[in-house]
Amino acid sequence: MLKEDKAASGQAGISPVERLNALVAPDMKAADKLIHKGMASSVDLIPDLARHLIDSGGKRLRPLLTLAAAKAGGYQGDGHVRLAAAVEFIHTATLLHDDVVDESALRRGKVSANLVWGNKPSVLVGDYLFSRAFQLMVETGNLAVLGILSGASAVIAEGEVMQLGSARSLAVTEDHYMKVVSAKTAALFAAAAEGGAVLAAQSTDFIASMRAYGENLGIAFQLVDDALDYSGRQALMGKSVGDDFREAKMTLPIILSVARADETARAFWQRVIETGNQTEADLHHAISLVEQTGSIQETMRRARAYADAAKNALAILPASEIRSALSDIADFCVERAY
Amino acid sequence: MLKEDKAASGQAGISPVERLNALVAPDMKAADKLIHKGMASSVDLIPDLARHLIDSGGKRLRPLLTLAAAKAGGYQGDGHVRLAAAVEFIHTATLLHDDVVDESALRRGKVSANLVWGNKPSVLVGDYLFSRAFQLMVETGNLAVLGILSGASAVIAEGEVMQLGSARSLAVTEDHYMKVVSAKTAALFAAAAEGGAVLAAQSTDFIASMRAYGENLGIAFQLVDDALDYSGRQALMGKSVGDDFREAKMTLPIILSVARADETARAFWQRVIETGNQTEADLHHAISLVEQTGSIQETMRRARAYADAAKNALAILPASEIRSALSDIADFCVERAY
Repeated sequence: MLKEDKAASGQAGISPVERLNALVAPDMKAADKLIHKGMASSVDLIPDLARHLIDSGGKRLRPLLTLAAAKAGGYQGDGHVRLAAAVEFIHTATLLHDDVVDESALRRGKVSANLVWGNKPSVLVGDYLFSRAFQLMVETGNLAVLGILSGASAVIAEGEVMQLGSARSLAVTEDHYMKVVSAKTAALFAAAAEGGAVLAAQSTDFIASMRAYGENLGIAFQLVDDALDYSGRQALMGKSVGDDFREAKMTLPIILSVARADETARAFWQRVIETGNQTEADLHHAISLVEQTGSIQETMRRARAYADAAKNALAILPASEIRSALSDIADFCVERAY
Repeated sequence: MLKEDKAASGQAGISPVERLNALVAPDMKAADKLIHKGMASSVDLIPDLARHLIDSGGKRLRPLLTLAAAKAGGYQGDGHVRLAAAVEFIHTATLLHDDVVDESALRRGKVSANLVWGNKPSVLVGDYLFSRAFQLMVETGNLAVLGILSGASAVIAEGEVMQLGSARSLAVTEDHYMKVVSAKTAALFAAAAEGGAVLAAQSTDFIASMRAYGENLGIAFQLVDDALDYSGRQALMGKSVGDDFREAKMTLPIILSVARADETARAFWQRVIETGNQTEADLHHAISLVEQTGSIQETMRRARAYADAAKNALAILPASEIRSALSDIADFCVERAY
């Protein structure tokens, strides 16, 4: 998951995400209505817990991709609004389960639901929202869309299990890391964008392009997120730094630093990652190692390449405000780090 | 969930469940193949953990209802096999999450997955199987079935949250208990049977009857399960007794005993349920109170009424070996307790 989801954005001026939001404003409003309707239940704890996360200032980036892809594809019905709400529910369900798995304390700058209510309701309310997502998709009447999103959900769970299996191991390769990122983050971005295009009954090329846009954007987002966790810039934005370090997560900045480590640095990484024996002073040393080895710059360079691939995938769209906003979002995703 | 799922059946002779299994043997074999194919993943931990539960001798009762309803309805395609596998995946996913929520140590007589692998993979593999269930249902090409099962999944999660909210409280009413049972157990029995009838494109009456059969059977099963947890008969069958007591679950035998308690007994229930302060000697005292107040007999009397309602719902089916086996399963569900 993206740490970006853990803190409401505090950017000055209007971001391209907000621009795209404005371009699909009535649809997003309708999706939001469905989201609030869908999380209702006579069992009070369910909306209480769901609202804690859903109303916590997330950017609704994934449903935005669904609405934008449908609109760019000339879709006229109301299925895209249901699909957008479903995408947000799947995202929220994975966040709830992710926080239980990560034993997180914060999510979007608030105390996480698992700490407020305990792990048990977080697991069950995640299941509830996941079920609701499928109910909303059934209402679109489109089986292809159900196939895409259920496939993405399976891939997300696979990615999370993969990540679990590779925690605290310096042996994690770049290839393994990229597989995890593709699965746990990019799969839902890809499915969200693809689903909108499928609803619009667009050409195979159009659908594949929207999928490629979502997938590359998702990867770029996660890479930037992982870089920011070791960046002073993040601290300036009032976000916490070092969460991945404390959880001993093998993200790209660490993988690159380990590959470039001398003997002393390697011993340091072994201690802090493999044994988990670490202090706040170690975080500062980790940041300096990550910087010295150029690992942040390299992570950002790769993020830029994925953002460019996302932009290139938009070539199939006729020029429009939506295309321009989607393209700028890819740039923004990288530039927010500078 | 049913404790029945926690222990493989050790009945002598051929039970009506086995008879029904034999009547749909080729379909069940095909469903089993899909179940094993569907839990495959390049991430080894997923099939390892899933197999622990799926190959642990569960009776496959829910998918059996799907196959039986489809066959009784004259269904000719292969969608019922996919739906049966999906139903078993949903059931398995809820068991995995349920064990995390209950902090269970045993499931079907084996150490539960959460104790072997930890809670984290149990949550994520549950999500994986749940996603796979929806992928299988997409393959049936039947949106109505997807609607029924996604609705049931939402209701199951609601029931589990309800149960969570009412643990350790003597104020839990019979009405609340029945709502929990309908949601957490009967909803999937009902959807499993209904789904098979829907695939067979049967009449509204036929579909409603199969749903009613599943729902009433599910309630009867849970009531018997809850009665057996305080029964010496259960101990004779080599199953553990008192699991609900130790978890301070407000099941019907306790609710009835509390309603019929004198002042001393009420103080006892307050201590062991509300404060959770209890010993093994307390379990014996609880069993004697439950027996003295006739609460087991009353729970079984109600289970019998639901089993009869399940049998009555079968009237719409023409006489057949399947109808006879379904009817006998309803009897068996109650009689296994004597």
